[in-house]
Amino acid sequence: MSILPPYLMFLGDVPDRLAAKTAYGIVDWRRDWCLGQLRLDGCQADLDLPDLTVAEAAAQGAKTLIVGIVNAGGVLNEAWIPTILEALASGLDVASGLHIRLGSDPRIAEAARTHGRQLFDVRHSDQRFATGKGTKRPGLRLLTVGTDCSVGKKYTVLALERAMRERGLKADFRATGQTGVFISGRGVAIDAVVADFISGAAEWISPENEPDHWDLVEGQGSLFHPSFAGVTLGLLHGAQPDAFVVCHEPTRTRMRGVEHPLPSIADVIDLTIRCGRLTNPAIRPVGIAVNTEALAEDEARRVLEGYAAEHGLPATDPIRFGVGTIVDRIEADFPAAAPLRRSA
Amino acid sequence: MSILPPYLMFLGDVPDRLAAKTAYGIVDWRRDWCLGQLRLDGCQADLDLPDLTVAEAAAQGAKTLIVGIVNAGGVLNEAWIPTILEALASGLDVASGLHIRLGSDPRIAEAARTHGRQLFDVRHSDQRFATGKGTKRPGLRLLTVGTDCSVGKKYTVLALERAMRERGLKADFRATGQTGVFISGRGVAIDAVVADFISGAAEWISPENEPDHWDLVEGQGSLFHPSFAGVTLGLLHGAQPDAFVVCHEPTRTRMRGVEHPLPSIADVIDLTIRCGRLTNPAIRPVGIAVNTEALAEDEARRVLEGYAAEHGLPATDPIRFGVGTIVDRIEADFPAAAPLRRSA
Repeated sequence: MSILPPYLMFLGDVPDRLAAKTAYGIVDWRRDWCLGQLRLDGCQADLDLPDLTVAEAAAQGAKTLIVGIVNAGGVLNEAWIPTILEALASGLDVASGLHIRLGSDPRIAEAARTHGRQLFDVRHSDQRFATGKGTKRPGLRLLTVGTDCSVGKKYTVLALERAMRERGLKADFRATGQTGVFISGRGVAIDAVVADFISGAAEWISPENEPDHWDLVEGQGSLFHPSFAGVTLGLLHGAQPDAFVVCHEPTRTRMRGVEHPLPSIADVIDLTIRCGRLTNPAIRPVGIAVNTEALAEDEARRVLEGYAAEHGLPATDPIRFGVGTIVDRIEADFPAAAPLRRSA
Repeated sequence: MSILPPYLMFLGDVPDRLAAKTAYGIVDWRRDWCLGQLRLDGCQADLDLPDLTVAEAAAQGAKTLIVGIVNAGGVLNEAWIPTILEALASGLDVASGLHIRLGSDPRIAEAARTHGRQLFDVRHSDQRFATGKGTKRPGLRLLTVGTDCSVGKKYTVLALERAMRERGLKADFRATGQTGVFISGRGVAIDAVVADFISGAAEWISPENEPDHWDLVEGQGSLFHPSFAGVTLGLLHGAQPDAFVVCHEPTRTRMRGVEHPLPSIADVIDLTIRCGRLTNPAIRPVGIAVNTEALAEDEARRVLEGYAAEHGLPATDPIRFGVGTIVDRIEADFPAAAPLRRSA
């Protein structure tokens, strides 16, 4: 599965920015893949991209219409259908993050067949995976883990990708969630695969690579989250990370969607090492990424200094202060991964 | 989903006993649910049940035809189709453990519709679950865990169900794998659910119950198996066991299907407690169930005595020596669960 850029971003008639969250995430990290946006009457979101018709986008070389919309029932709005059909007729593939499958609408299924185009439903996984083997693969891997869901695991790996590439390191983001798949053009929403194949899918996501190449694998859930820990563990075993970054939100008191308190950062480091050793005995933490949005800057700095001292790791807010200190640690701990850049 | 007994066991034309493994498992534990068997020409398996035609079974009240067959490609053999169609026309539901869905054959799908019968594909899960909540539910729960896959986790809970019921305890087997679902008539092949819903499915499998009632939950995989640990962890969190039994095979040197060595029993106890505490802080081990088939009897006894002394737990081979010592421990550790029986 490979979603081909450039993209035409379809926002439909979304009532607010939040309903186009996926689309904003794509533009944040892959603006150069996004030729333009297509908005219907009443659309209340704006990606700050050129407004294009399907015909204009096709003429400029767009390869895929991205349905970057979240809506309540996850349904296909009737008002969106003509645009989707026009895109298929104009030679574009269509990719969607909705719960409902594009092909569940017979008109869309038929148009895709007629025009030989692909439909991507990134929330679903029809791909067949092997079961995980746990065999060590060449190449370096970093995984983000968390004290909870939604604590910046995707943002952190994307920020690391950008910063590591700027330093000349070989680094690729590996997507395990729907927005990530659009940003990567490849990957799998790992919480949508059949349970037997979680670690197998994670192995497929970060295959064998050059010894100095970093796969930066988007983490999911938390080993301490009673809803999703199975996904987290399978992903940890399949990704077999050499390094991991713990993501945390210091003002949260309960885990998302349940009554459980957050585990400590020390608990997460300890259990991640303990379980991660099964497929990579050399696993180690290289940083702590904290969402300090709710804190004033001086308090944020104080909190980060406290974590850094307590755990002996660089602690930063990737959005506020960047991830440079974590990349410093990665370079220090894995010096063999950057010989060419150093001599350049 | 509820598969209704009595069953007519369909063996088709299987070439050997192994190909009818599921059917043998059902008869081992639910002989009273099995009215008879139906074998085609060339069938090399025999469940030691009366041979019945579909018409005879229907007349005797059979409710479900069980396709208890394993075959290489998991396909539907053309020779089996007439029997399946006849069963549906005679008012029986049909349940199968094959990889291929019964309804993928248009004749079977059509016959089920026409006659208003249900098709059960226990390897697949079309049921929708909620995500796990991790909230403590009333009732007692026991889960089998293992040093590997295929070390007797299903057999152990079924043996416990039988022994606990004989002592007047309230105990129900809860199935999480395909053979188990046939034996229970209910349950879900938990490795077939979408990854996001592993713990939610486990919560559905063992719902709220009376305070002195035991759900005996069939374990899957191992926290130390690099292919399947995600399933094991989600099941542990969802089952929220009060008690667990570690299953082990002492002559095995590598985990099934991979290169990894087996973990120690102590490792399994320790990590199970550590992770299980998330949804049940009172989790504790109550026994070790060992498959000693490969050992002479005196050596088996020596091995079991060693495990018992090392871990301070009853250690037994459920097949060779029964599970009485484990039930003794359960009664000792949970005295409130058996007051009526004791006073009777």
